[in-house]
Amino acid sequence: MSGVIVTGPPRADARDIEALAGYGVATVSEAMGRKGLVGPELRPIQQGVRIAGSAVTVLSWPGDNLMIHAAVEQCGEGDVLVVTTTSPSTDGMFGELFATALQRRGVRGLVIEAGIRDTQELREMGFAAWAKAVSAQGTVKATGGSVNIPVVVGGQCVRPGDIILADDDGVVVVPRERVRETAEASGAREAKEAEARAEFQEGRLGLDRYKLRGKLADLGVRYASYEEYAGETGA
Amino acid sequence: MSGVIVTGPPRADARDIEALAGYGVATVSEAMGRKGLVGPELRPIQQGVRIAGSAVTVLSWPGDNLMIHAAVEQCGEGDVLVVTTTSPSTDGMFGELFATALQRRGVRGLVIEAGIRDTQELREMGFAAWAKAVSAQGTVKATGGSVNIPVVVGGQCVRPGDIILADDDGVVVVPRERVRETAEASGAREAKEAEARAEFQEGRLGLDRYKLRGKLADLGVRYASYEEYAGETGA
Amino acid sequence: MSGVIVTGPPRADARDIEALAGYGVATVSEAMGRKGLVGPELRPIQQGVRIAGSAVTVLSWPGDNLMIHAAVEQCGEGDVLVVTTTSPSTDGMFGELFATALQRRGVRGLVIEAGIRDTQELREMGFAAWAKAVSAQGTVKATGGSVNIPVVVGGQCVRPGDIILADDDGVVVVPRERVRETAEASGAREAKEAEARAEFQEGRLGLDRYKLRGKLADLGVRYASYEEYAGETGA
Amino acid sequence: MSGVIVTGPPRADARDIEALAGYGVATVSEAMGRKGLVGPELRPIQQGVRIAGSAVTVLSWPGDNLMIHAAVEQCGEGDVLVVTTTSPSTDGMFGELFATALQRRGVRGLVIEAGIRDTQELREMGFAAWAKAVSAQGTVKATGGSVNIPVVVGGQCVRPGDIILADDDGVVVVPRERVRETAEASGAREAKEAEARAEFQEGRLGLDRYKLRGKLADLGVRYASYEEYAGETGA
Amino acid sequence: MSGVIVTGPPRADARDIEALAGYGVATVSEAMGRKGLVGPELRPIQQGVRIAGSAVTVLSWPGDNLMIHAAVEQCGEGDVLVVTTTSPSTDGMFGELFATALQRRGVRGLVIEAGIRDTQELREMGFAAWAKAVSAQGTVKATGGSVNIPVVVGGQCVRPGDIILADDDGVVVVPRERVRETAEASGAREAKEAEARAEFQEGRLGLDRYKLRGKLADLGVRYASYEEYAGETGA
Amino acid sequence: MSGVIVTGPPRADARDIEALAGYGVATVSEAMGRKGLVGPELRPIQQGVRIAGSAVTVLSWPGDNLMIHAAVEQCGEGDVLVVTTTSPSTDGMFGELFATALQRRGVRGLVIEAGIRDTQELREMGFAAWAKAVSAQGTVKATGGSVNIPVVVGGQCVRPGDIILADDDGVVVVPRERVRETAEASGAREAKEAEARAEFQEGRLGLDRYKLRGKLADLGVRYASYEEYAGETGA
Repeated sequence: MSGVIVTGPPRADARDIEALAGYGVATVSEAMGRKGLVGPELRPIQQGVRIAGSAVTVLSWPGDNLMIHAAVEQCGEGDVLVVTTTSPSTDGMFGELFATALQRRGVRGLVIEAGIRDTQELREMGFAAWAKAVSAQGTVKATGGSVNIPVVVGGQCVRPGDIILADDDGVVVVPRERVRETAEASGAREAKEAEARAEFQEGRLGLDRYKLRGKLADLGVRYASYEEYAGETGA
Repeated sequence: MSGVIVTGPPRADARDIEALAGYGVATVSEAMGRKGLVGPELRPIQQGVRIAGSAVTVLSWPGDNLMIHAAVEQCGEGDVLVVTTTSPSTDGMFGELFATALQRRGVRGLVIEAGIRDTQELREMGFAAWAKAVSAQGTVKATGGSVNIPVVVGGQCVRPGDIILADDDGVVVVPRERVRETAEASGAREAKEAEARAEFQEGRLGLDRYKLRGKLADLGVRYASYEEYAGETGA
Repeated sequence: MSGVIVTGPPRADARDIEALAGYGVATVSEAMGRKGLVGPELRPIQQGVRIAGSAVTVLSWPGDNLMIHAAVEQCGEGDVLVVTTTSPSTDGMFGELFATALQRRGVRGLVIEAGIRDTQELREMGFAAWAKAVSAQGTVKATGGSVNIPVVVGGQCVRPGDIILADDDGVVVVPRERVRETAEASGAREAKEAEARAEFQEGRLGLDRYKLRGKLADLGVRYASYEEYAGETGA
Repeated sequence: MSGVIVTGPPRADARDIEALAGYGVATVSEAMGRKGLVGPELRPIQQGVRIAGSAVTVLSWPGDNLMIHAAVEQCGEGDVLVVTTTSPSTDGMFGELFATALQRRGVRGLVIEAGIRDTQELREMGFAAWAKAVSAQGTVKATGGSVNIPVVVGGQCVRPGDIILADDDGVVVVPRERVRETAEASGAREAKEAEARAEFQEGRLGLDRYKLRGKLADLGVRYASYEEYAGETGA
Repeated sequence: MSGVIVTGPPRADARDIEALAGYGVATVSEAMGRKGLVGPELRPIQQGVRIAGSAVTVLSWPGDNLMIHAAVEQCGEGDVLVVTTTSPSTDGMFGELFATALQRRGVRGLVIEAGIRDTQELREMGFAAWAKAVSAQGTVKATGGSVNIPVVVGGQCVRPGDIILADDDGVVVVPRERVRETAEASGAREAKEAEARAEFQEGRLGLDRYKLRGKLADLGVRYASYEEYAGETGA
Repeated sequence: MSGVIVTGPPRADARDIEALAGYGVATVSEAMGRKGLVGPELRPIQQGVRIAGSAVTVLSWPGDNLMIHAAVEQCGEGDVLVVTTTSPSTDGMFGELFATALQRRGVRGLVIEAGIRDTQELREMGFAAWAKAVSAQGTVKATGGSVNIPVVVGGQCVRPGDIILADDDGVVVVPRERVRETAEASGAREAKEAEARAEFQEGRLGLDRYKLRGKLADLGVRYASYEEYAGETGA
């Protein structure tokens, strides 16, 4: 398979990345209108870590890590490497040696729709990763692919320079054009959530806060005592 | 979809719950004759935590958390919220705001056959949860459902007021009518296991303790030296 | 189902096991030419633990742990118990009592293509395990099977006396005839990796170290600036 | 595992079954308010066949068909055999010999949350079946279970005497108390669908028939020409 | 969730569609350099049918078919409806009534990353469909979404007006800008395949036709007689 | 990855193959003591076809069909090609051109733990296949592998020259040393089944034929009338 290595793609602005980095994945995806979430099949290999960075993308052949080598050269400070394969694979395409090379270049982490290995070493190095599988199965360097083209990861399209935000809840992709509005909307959402949290801590109900009692009635959801209900159903 | 919110259902007695809370999920499910276990697809988001409580049940539309809001009002001290959806869903229907409201009301945890989010915050709050998926995907409040009707979670029927016991091994449902006999049988089983443990620590074999040697012979299982076996199979 | 319990099978030499125990699963599977890896569906129940030992194998009926009782008697110092079932099962066939008996006999851990339970207790005891599922579902002792015959676990054939090496990355099987050459090749590989690590820490690229630039060109992978590429694709 | 064989349970009335048999699974589940559907993991082994009958239920140990033998005696004219296992199994618990015995007794088909075998013979005999897997793996007769107790199949609770309706779209369970109202509601629904079909054939839109244009506007769904949209998104 | 219904998007030229319609999915995806294939989790509900058309895209909330109603109005002669959901769903969002409305408008078929129902009726009507699941579970009309925006289906990005080609082997997406070159490349490929087929029918080997013997040697793949190999491995 | 192409391996005797070919997969696997069954994840692409032949085995890299080209040369009259990959893959490694070459050489079919394509053409040619997936995704010819070494397919070890039997129920592997005893045992089993079938057609029960009533009692399975049972459980 031939391919292309795209050099010098747009990169997210460092301040934009920082603006997003303060929010969780759930908050940011809500702030984008519930868009951009990578599917839950990609899981973190560590706990309690959040990263944000500018995507460098890789499309590889299954069982082949040649294009990750090509991608390392395209990575720099503040990037997140995003890897997918042309068909489903669980092979451990990425391990501690790649992490060493990337950490040296200032890369913040990895999102990979395939397998990963050397997980204990990666945790010890503090190199954060989200992957579809953990597998020690190694790979060859025999088939072409591409770097910095748009790819689909976990059902989301990721372009080079889009912002990747990842934490214990998963991974979200923010198009580079929408970082500022998303950061603002995230801040607004967090303020609203703080308000809700305070009210909930005092015992207020979501039914009242969000005015849901009328909606339940409109939808035909009725209240029944246990005795009434048991009488109706014979249960 | 219309539905019903059942108020004032039976609740497990607090002493009954406490009686069960001292046993592990494996012990209790054995004590019930290997019944009541929720399938292994529901996993804890934390490690080393055990909860027991009285079930408040929710049947929701996929991608919709309206009925969880309705359920919060029905929850109180010592309850466990049990949520399922009308068709399979991994959406993150439950997060830190719901946990805040439930913790205020004395709820002990969540069992959900769908997704959960804000997992790091939930661990920090000490709100225990067992879920089918972790996903930051948010939900709407647009479709009706029911609270406190019998639901099926992980292949088990759960009625409001049944006892839920959950730990690192999974989740078990004890019908409220069977709590006392189950607690007794669990105690008996634990005593038997302590005895077995002591014997195993001294080197006794299960083959002898459980008188299995005759059974093996009856089943036609024979002993062969490696040489005999290798000779027979050519392996 | 009838079966056979093979006694006195070959065992890996303790020094051979020690020779391998210093290497990770990924290194050893690479050193064997990417053979021997158990599939990634078997996961550790603990983190940061590595074991190596000589396989004692069990083939059980699903939902039945009779043959594990028979296998305990065949286990000794330095062994690893390897269990599979005649058809897929997630039942918790193995728990703390078996671990107690095995730990007493010097067994180093468990690899099971089925379910496991008492996971918290196993972690507390320091009994390491790799399993396909965590499930509290118990099992009967009603059907025959075999001990110490060749079995398939995670897509790999395991014979009694083969070496099992397991860590956070998964499980690898080394045929007992190949331990020494594998240990040597693992050492060589580790030395090569140390060299690569040192170069990568200094900023050298895999593209240069592994002479991949020519290969990329041969495969028809070309470099294009973002502007060129965007012009071509209209993206 | 001990168990119970319940004799003489309630049976659905033959006329009630006939009343439902004229409707498809989708129509009936809609008529019940979208309840009762067995999950899509159970698939027919034949095409173009619809059956309806009164459930005889079986709870078996995985890999064990003893209780199906016990259930045959409890089956009669117009029944559908419904089988599940205490934990997940794909074993081929049911084949042509069971089908021969059941066909002799007037049984209409099988719904099984496990495996099935002799599928070609079953198709040739005209014995209809819905199963989770096709597998030639045979089973033992070693462990107890129950017949005609409530069971959970594909996430639905089925009691003996409930009506089972199955076709190419799947399987639906109608509680025996609700057969008549469900048959009536199914008829009403079919009439409504015939009306809709006629209108759609003439080109009317669902947007108009179901008055959805206002709802779209209320939900904030707007119309944009391609040019406007492309301008906004830069896509 | 708000959304947008994009009207008047680009459409593939009818002659372009016809140019592609003569080739199979495998041929066309090869001709595009192995790009554009929708994942194998989407399967046809019929056998032996091939369709080609211009994509009209739908992004729906899980369990909600409101936006399919909106999309019908945007569909016309030669289109293929392409539906996905914001999170994974198996609900039967599409059935015979929608097919009636679409068939009236000249739509050629459906590709849906969710569930479908009325499958027997669809086959009888000759309305072709590829779906992730068959499920009778119905849906509500409560939440917004979008029509004719770019969506991801089976891991492939599909824009309105892209060409969809589907047959027994699956579904491929051809960007509308690449239809002509793809049709030409498909023709070239088919000619080459006809040549290969003729040679293979006469007994020529791929090893010779594609000059692979040297490559095998270069890769270190050697030939050994069974006796040599058995001697080396002791197998 | 280097590898080996083993020439001239043992082949099953044609008369042995014919002896087995008259029996179904279920009968033969029973006759072998429930061994040898390939997992149910491999499914036929056609219906109503049974094949038997001598295995030629292939171990390929995922996404690479180079070794199938090498294997074609090793195939002859009466063989069945058995293909697996070093790690899980759904790529369509095999299609109509390979089938053409193999059919010319007298090969009877394909068993592949990966993907297959050109399924309609294969059905039309009468080339039988059992596969894990249907996918149009093509493959490269870049990485080595092996032919005619022992491989694991669907959890079963297959050696070259073992007999493969496949039908609608799946695939079974008979070691070449055991063909005659297996054919005899299959015949005996079929005779026994014919007897059982005749008795079942006349209404005899398995409970009586297999003397299971005493076993049920021994296992503690009791009979209860519905009234008794309902009284006990309150259900």
